[in-house]
Amino acid sequence: MTKPCIICVAITGSVPTTKDNPAVPVTIEAQIESTHEAFEAGATIMHAHVRNDDETPTSDPEKFARLVEGVQKHCPGMIIQLSTGGRSGAGKTRGGMLPLRPDMASLSVGSNNFPTRVYENPPDLVDWLASEMRTYDVKPEIEAFDLSHIFKAAEMNRDGRIPGQLYVQFVMGVKNAMPCDREVFDYYIKTVERLAPDAQWCAAGIGRHQIEVNEWSIAAGGHTRT
Amino acid sequence: MTKPCIICVAITGSVPTTKDNPAVPVTIEAQIESTHEAFEAGATIMHAHVRNDDETPTSDPEKFARLVEGVQKHCPGMIIQLSTGGRSGAGKTRGGMLPLRPDMASLSVGSNNFPTRVYENPPDLVDWLASEMRTYDVKPEIEAFDLSHIFKAAEMNRDGRIPGQLYVQFVMGVKNAMPCDREVFDYYIKTVERLAPDAQWCAAGIGRHQIEVNEWSIAAGGHTRT
Ligand SMILES: [Zn+2]
Ligand SMILES: [Zn+2]
Ligand SMILES: [Zn+2]
Ligand SMILES: [Zn+2]
Repeated sequence: MTKPCIICVAITGSVPTTKDNPAVPVTIEAQIESTHEAFEAGATIMHAHVRNDDETPTSDPEKFARLVEGVQKHCPGMIIQLSTGGRSGAGKTRGGMLPLRPDMASLSVGSNNFPTRVYENPPDLVDWLASEMRTYDVKPEIEAFDLSHIFKAAEMNRDGRIPGQLYVQFVMGVKNAMPCDREVFDYYIKTVERLAPDAQWCAAGIGRHQIEVNEWSIAAGGHTRT
Repeated sequence: MTKPCIICVAITGSVPTTKDNPAVPVTIEAQIESTHEAFEAGATIMHAHVRNDDETPTSDPEKFARLVEGVQKHCPGMIIQLSTGGRSGAGKTRGGMLPLRPDMASLSVGSNNFPTRVYENPPDLVDWLASEMRTYDVKPEIEAFDLSHIFKAAEMNRDGRIPGQLYVQFVMGVKNAMPCDREVFDYYIKTVERLAPDAQWCAAGIGRHQIEVNEWSIAAGGHTRT
């Protein structure tokens, strides 16, 4: 397999705080620095969430703008992917940073359970986020928390709502969503290849599953997120 | 295969009204009569929703009680399964009929998208519905709208939240949830057999997919809903 392995670094998720792990970068300055280190270590994509001063997640476009500016300056050529995930806001506030025209943004195309709540991605919000990404020329990374999300992404790809080559990330190991399961991982790949043969895929294992899923991805020729 | 084929009849879904199809039974009396016909034609299980006078869905325990009484009288031995689905109410009202101690009740263990909204089954509601079913000795039929729902059901089976033999229904063909797909249907069966080897399964294709999914189910040795 000569296809280059894309390493995607998620420097800061939306949940852990410095109370959980003092090494988690939560200020914009610390995030830029941490991204820079990952960039020098070979990461190609940075996947970003931003935080309020109290470390709670936010979708504040102004914070995202400062992060984008810093990363562009310190990590020339790095692909910047901003999160439109639902922990940081509701409804259209989740897409408020898309006018910044990042290279990529995460896009959930279905709903599922999270550890203590429903991760809500209603169909009209999914369509609106996808249309904003088309408007601002942002490439979506589809966050597949379940099998039907791959079907939905392929449908949106066929009808033009997600134009071009699909980029799908399998997310495994979130409690109450899809667990980390090797057979499902293989079936996800098979399904992507069947429904969208030219798609690219990557995989993220959450928490203690991270390394395991990274290893599967690299062995199977996919990209991986750390 | 000598395993008897269980036919489950859903006389009235939660969506169509007599405007869509004048044959849809929406009054309790018409539902009892229609169930009786299905019973004489060989149906073993009746899956029931009830309606308000304006035909909108409801979870009213009093309506369910009249339905249960009529079906028990007209169809002796028929298995009665009441819907705890979310179109008819929110939160705990969805389980308000469980003290009637029907033989079975539907149970969704995850969330997913429906045609125009999120089908919300938050983890705490899922746990509460399952505990009510244990209290009143009601056997759940797991409604699997996506692959992770099979994993969740198996987990709840292992830890005793859903005791005994699992009974899983694959639901396919609902827009924005899992489409009707033969390969996924086979993978669902394989996954049930892997995670819960003594489970029983059935399948329901929604709308125009109904006959197709029935045929797959019967050929694969599962039960089927019409
Ligand atoms: Zn990635
Ligand atoms: Zn993220
Ligand atoms: Zn059934
Ligand atoms: Zn139903």
